[in-house]
Amino acid sequence: MTTLLALACLALATNVYAAFPDCANGPLANNTVCDTSATPLERATALISLFTLEEKINNTGNTAPGVPRLGLPAYQWWQEALHGLADSPGVIFSESGEFSYATSFPQPILMGAAFDDALINSVATVVSTEGRAFNNANRSGLDFWTPNINPFRDPRWGRGQETPGEDPFHLQSYVYNLITGLQGGLDPAYKRVVATCKHYAAYDLENWMGNVRYGFDALVSLQDLSEFYTRSFQTCARDANVGAFMCSYNAVNGVPSCANSYLLQDILREHWNWTNEDQWVTSDCDAVQNIYEPHYYAPTRAQTVADALNAGTDLDCGTYYPDFLGVAYNESLINVTTLNRALIRQYASLVKLGYFDPAENQPYRQLGWENVSTPYAEQLAYTAAVEGITLLKNDGTLPLSKDIKTLALIGPWANATTQMQGNYYGVAPYLISPLMAAEALNYTVLYSSGPGIDDPTTPTYPAAFEVASQADAIIYAGGIDTTVEAEAMDRYTIDWPGVQPDFIDLLSQLGKPLIVLQMGGGQIDDSCLIPNTNVNAIIWGGYPGQSGGAALMDIIAGNAAPAGRLPITQYPIEYVNEVPMTDMSLRPSATNPGRTYMWYTGTPIFEFGYGLHYTNFSATLSAPSAASYDVQSLVAACAGAAYLDLCPFEAYTVNVTNTGSTHASDYVSLLFVAGEHGPTPYPNKVLVAYDRLHGVEPLSSQTTTLNLTLGSLARRDDYGNTVLYPGEYTLLLDVEPQSTQSFTLTGESTVLDYWPQP
Amino acid sequence: MTTLLALACLALATNVYAAFPDCANGPLANNTVCDTSATPLERATALISLFTLEEKINNTGNTAPGVPRLGLPAYQWWQEALHGLADSPGVIFSESGEFSYATSFPQPILMGAAFDDALINSVATVVSTEGRAFNNANRSGLDFWTPNINPFRDPRWGRGQETPGEDPFHLQSYVYNLITGLQGGLDPAYKRVVATCKHYAAYDLENWMGNVRYGFDALVSLQDLSEFYTRSFQTCARDANVGAFMCSYNAVNGVPSCANSYLLQDILREHWNWTNEDQWVTSDCDAVQNIYEPHYYAPTRAQTVADALNAGTDLDCGTYYPDFLGVAYNESLINVTTLNRALIRQYASLVKLGYFDPAENQPYRQLGWENVSTPYAEQLAYTAAVEGITLLKNDGTLPLSKDIKTLALIGPWANATTQMQGNYYGVAPYLISPLMAAEALNYTVLYSSGPGIDDPTTPTYPAAFEVASQADAIIYAGGIDTTVEAEAMDRYTIDWPGVQPDFIDLLSQLGKPLIVLQMGGGQIDDSCLIPNTNVNAIIWGGYPGQSGGAALMDIIAGNAAPAGRLPITQYPIEYVNEVPMTDMSLRPSATNPGRTYMWYTGTPIFEFGYGLHYTNFSATLSAPSAASYDVQSLVAACAGAAYLDLCPFEAYTVNVTNTGSTHASDYVSLLFVAGEHGPTPYPNKVLVAYDRLHGVEPLSSQTTTLNLTLGSLARRDDYGNTVLYPGEYTLLLDVEPQSTQSFTLTGESTVLDYWPQP
Repeated sequence: MTTLLALACLALATNVYAAFPDCANGPLANNTVCDTSATPLERATALISLFTLEEKINNTGNTAPGVPRLGLPAYQWWQEALHGLADSPGVIFSESGEFSYATSFPQPILMGAAFDDALINSVATVVSTEGRAFNNANRSGLDFWTPNINPFRDPRWGRGQETPGEDPFHLQSYVYNLITGLQGGLDPAYKRVVATCKHYAAYDLENWMGNVRYGFDALVSLQDLSEFYTRSFQTCARDANVGAFMCSYNAVNGVPSCANSYLLQDILREHWNWTNEDQWVTSDCDAVQNIYEPHYYAPTRAQTVADALNAGTDLDCGTYYPDFLGVAYNESLINVTTLNRALIRQYASLVKLGYFDPAENQPYRQLGWENVSTPYAEQLAYTAAVEGITLLKNDGTLPLSKDIKTLALIGPWANATTQMQGNYYGVAPYLISPLMAAEALNYTVLYSSGPGIDDPTTPTYPAAFEVASQADAIIYAGGIDTTVEAEAMDRYTIDWPGVQPDFIDLLSQLGKPLIVLQMGGGQIDDSCLIPNTNVNAIIWGGYPGQSGGAALMDIIAGNAAPAGRLPITQYPIEYVNEVPMTDMSLRPSATNPGRTYMWYTGTPIFEFGYGLHYTNFSATLSAPSAASYDVQSLVAACAGAAYLDLCPFEAYTVNVTNTGSTHASDYVSLLFVAGEHGPTPYPNKVLVAYDRLHGVEPLSSQTTTLNLTLGSLARRDDYGNTVLYPGEYTLLLDVEPQSTQSFTLTGESTVLDYWPQP
Repeated sequence: MTTLLALACLALATNVYAAFPDCANGPLANNTVCDTSATPLERATALISLFTLEEKINNTGNTAPGVPRLGLPAYQWWQEALHGLADSPGVIFSESGEFSYATSFPQPILMGAAFDDALINSVATVVSTEGRAFNNANRSGLDFWTPNINPFRDPRWGRGQETPGEDPFHLQSYVYNLITGLQGGLDPAYKRVVATCKHYAAYDLENWMGNVRYGFDALVSLQDLSEFYTRSFQTCARDANVGAFMCSYNAVNGVPSCANSYLLQDILREHWNWTNEDQWVTSDCDAVQNIYEPHYYAPTRAQTVADALNAGTDLDCGTYYPDFLGVAYNESLINVTTLNRALIRQYASLVKLGYFDPAENQPYRQLGWENVSTPYAEQLAYTAAVEGITLLKNDGTLPLSKDIKTLALIGPWANATTQMQGNYYGVAPYLISPLMAAEALNYTVLYSSGPGIDDPTTPTYPAAFEVASQADAIIYAGGIDTTVEAEAMDRYTIDWPGVQPDFIDLLSQLGKPLIVLQMGGGQIDDSCLIPNTNVNAIIWGGYPGQSGGAALMDIIAGNAAPAGRLPITQYPIEYVNEVPMTDMSLRPSATNPGRTYMWYTGTPIFEFGYGLHYTNFSATLSAPSAASYDVQSLVAACAGAAYLDLCPFEAYTVNVTNTGSTHASDYVSLLFVAGEHGPTPYPNKVLVAYDRLHGVEPLSSQTTTLNLTLGSLARRDDYGNTVLYPGEYTLLLDVEPQSTQSFTLTGESTVLDYWPQP
């Protein structure tokens, strides 16, 4: 019977889901769920109490049929919006005209490189506005399974492009601003949309040497779990009040994430106080099934769904819940209270979205097509790309001399369109390739695609050289794209793929100005290009979105100035031979050179935070208020703080001077802490604050304030506890330190946060 | 300038290449090349002597522009025909009507499973007939870059499907019959077409953990090189007189194959006497370029092309030769004699194809569309599939009872069409899927695709179970296909991919007759299916070609009887964790459980040569003529033999009886040698002869003769020498031995063939 019912659900797949229940005249009109004076918990509980057991079970999958007899519409819980509304089961673009497109921002890895929290908040606000507009047109639900906020642990990861980078503090700051933008604040009267922090936890491997995400068991120490893998999720749950979480495909220390009560209950709900009535957990799609196979964690399918539901996975993206929860119930593996709890969380969430309330009182219900892809949104997509694009090498050739009139645009990214969107994308209003942008700037443009991304062959060589020989300057746009880094596809090499290095070398022998655009989300080792004096400049462009070509060409032409910083380490090619991707540990060991800029013991090609400008900057950091602080006094001063790690320590002023005379430019202040304090080994340094200043004029200064908390100074012990330690502390401003300050902490180590023990 | 010339070549890419030179009235009419009384060497030499240096260099790539001023047409050297004419630069199918299709046979891995040399010769004859017909219509050249005759060393190899299997003797016998079929005999007046044995040598890795074929250095012992990696190539060159070789992407022991004079000169030309004036070596496509990058073997591009040409690579599939041989010549890195040699070989080959001769005297020039996809060819494609399909499990459910009227066909292969062609395929006249074939057999067929090959998701479960619940029996058609095993893509797991095991298990719980078709070229571990008594039968179907569905369904319905044998070992899933794919050694060690049935120390899921029938057979092997033989006497009796290893030892009669009373069936006699002789370790056993008997009637017998040579008994020493050793020898008939015979060899070890030392 469940089979037939599920068939009925599937039949909905081509329909529209976003119809609202009729609380005025429908069967529910007199139910408490339609009573706006009742609490969300009361309203959701009243609704669920009307469901039969079968109706409850039928509504536990992402494609929920609703309850027709109650006038409760079908609902699709699965919408995607990684960097703009994205094709997904619940987002339906029209074929033409209104609602046929939406703003497509750069991939998060490039937006991460902007190190601009306000930008992220603005982008998220646009995305949720456009989501509401689509929802009002019955073209989207209100729950979005974004962001992907796993730290980018290994350069091989195919989905690293979906994240803001490798640094936990950076991810925390980014995700806080993203979620408050998407949801409309910390506790709004009506949420704009519900965001979903994924993939909880320690998910950052797709398919590496037969280790497939669906069955991978991530072995993670409590120290790494607390310090690295869950920091961004803590911010989602504890600080940003995100509406939903997604448990991940992988297991953590032997227990599949979606059956992992230590992760879902002990840490997420109890330790992080993520206990609002409207906060729910979905599985990644078919992750519940994967508990059975290929994790082989539970002996039967009924036990599988019981394990997941009892552990705290409220919704199954898939069909295992609707297919097998009935069996589990008959076998007494679940009880109805747990089932009700899951459904109440989901429907309380819809209550907080205004799903059961009159439209006329809700501003978001008034949004329409005129609020999609507005001139502001279009400009913001362009700005996001400009801010993220990162200059890695420049001998002065950039910005291009005005004498250069004819450009050869060559390479597999030279006329990129959807390529610029990476993955999880929708229909953009337009896609401005580098080629189109160069033509719009009135260059005479000669184009040849050259060899493909991973192409070992040379059939297009001659045409490319013909083009290059006729140009004043050559722009080679290549690197990687989603043909080599993708969902379900990790990399095995971080070299430039295919024949590209050979091809660029041949181009360089022409002796013309040569700019290399290194595109894609993961880094590739540029060391073959750096010593080549005929490669005049290298720009990393990520996946820059709908206006990506315009942003790149405006920087190249000097209409915009680059100030992005690498949000990830660019490792040398041998890195992939030095540590298996399956090794989750961060700290260096005999079989691991260390992961991220914090722990890597080798010499990176380009360091985390690296990025050049068209001008020079000097920056100074204000002095600490004291040379020494007592740990106990610092903690005592925080009495009454909800969370000691968030209690302020000191604020530092950064004074930034553009010492050049020609180019205004943004500047990102990155503040790191280093020093001997806490358990060994000590990290190289740790990012604790950042801010982006905009448009610092030539020979002018701006200031910003960087706020440190006790957590900025704390480290994690072997149990995952957050501890403030006595010792030496040095503050380092910028990657090549522009300014340093030091102080000491004295007294006894003090725990700021006790990590739950499994 | 070379760039512009190469551009001119590229412009030809959409044209037709197969026009013949006009030897009657064209500029060459009075040149010796048009004189049919001259030798091929004289004729080719005369032609080349007319070329300028630039014209010579321009004609060193696969897309040869010819010499217009001499009336020498452009020629495309690159045609593919792995299992029928295949889309490739030189094979142009028309959009409709005549020459819009050609016969598409099963992939070699399935034809290998037939163990039927006569079948292979027939298939190759059809392919070359169709190639000639296309050539006469200006739709193909006459040089085909087939077969792929590397042994299938590792189950992960993405191109193993293109080979007949893992056993060197099997490959030798197969390739001899294939080449004589393609070329029209050993030394025909006119060759039908020119075949190309590829990829020489030790090429069997695509892309595994960042080890990419273009830059991989295969470290191979002389013993393994002689015994395993080059046996089939020896047959191509020394015995079958193949017209062309292709050197491979990889290096062998530090030297890229296409720059490897040890491989190309010492072994191929000198040791194997492959020295006809018309025998030439092409590079794999862009393998010359790969010598420069990513092998980084030569310091400059000029040195790269010189290294390749001087080592004996006559033709560059690519543009490095035409682009850089001029520079190499100017730098005195090559001389014109070497350049002439390469060109003479190629044009002498065209002479032997009748390219410069009057059409009217050449039978092959009379072939036309009426010779393509004839009823005979169509029947042969069906027969080839039937003969290869291999029955791995059967509890008596197959052939299906006549009471079964309604079939559920489920799975990603159930309605396979082009999927059945694997890779390197052309347009087939038709593609009969299992679904179409079942309908043609008047079953009531219920179809559901179920989950995809590597699909972790379940959205199609309900529909599939609905279908299954209504059927009398279920056929699940799945396994792998070119989405998981392909050129440029090795596997990391040999498990059933995705959710298929879970899905099949759910189907099996319905308790209906369930037949599983395990499709694809590489094996997958069936151990999840074997103990499940509700999985009634397992059939391996490879990539069965244009009539694949008909062949499968006729076997299932009992209209044909299965007699294929696995041409490769089916390893357990842990095998891929026990030895890196990059380890080329065959023999077991602490880090290698051994490769192929000869050396594997573990227990295979299904052994090489395994295959069930619909009846039972008994088979007996005639006794040796003696209990003991003296090595020196055996060798002395071969005085005057061109090659001692081919000198006959003894012929054995096999008497095969179908002991069943209901089904006629083919039977493959596989004869192995085992025993303690020669260097340790000893192989488990070694295949030395095989033959396929056709249509052995119930309660009837047939006999065949299996011929052994001295080479059948020989082994390789550490230097690669082929040596006849004293010791114990046991002959084993069939995988589960039906009959064994033993004898001893006495006397001194004697070398039958001295292997060239590097």
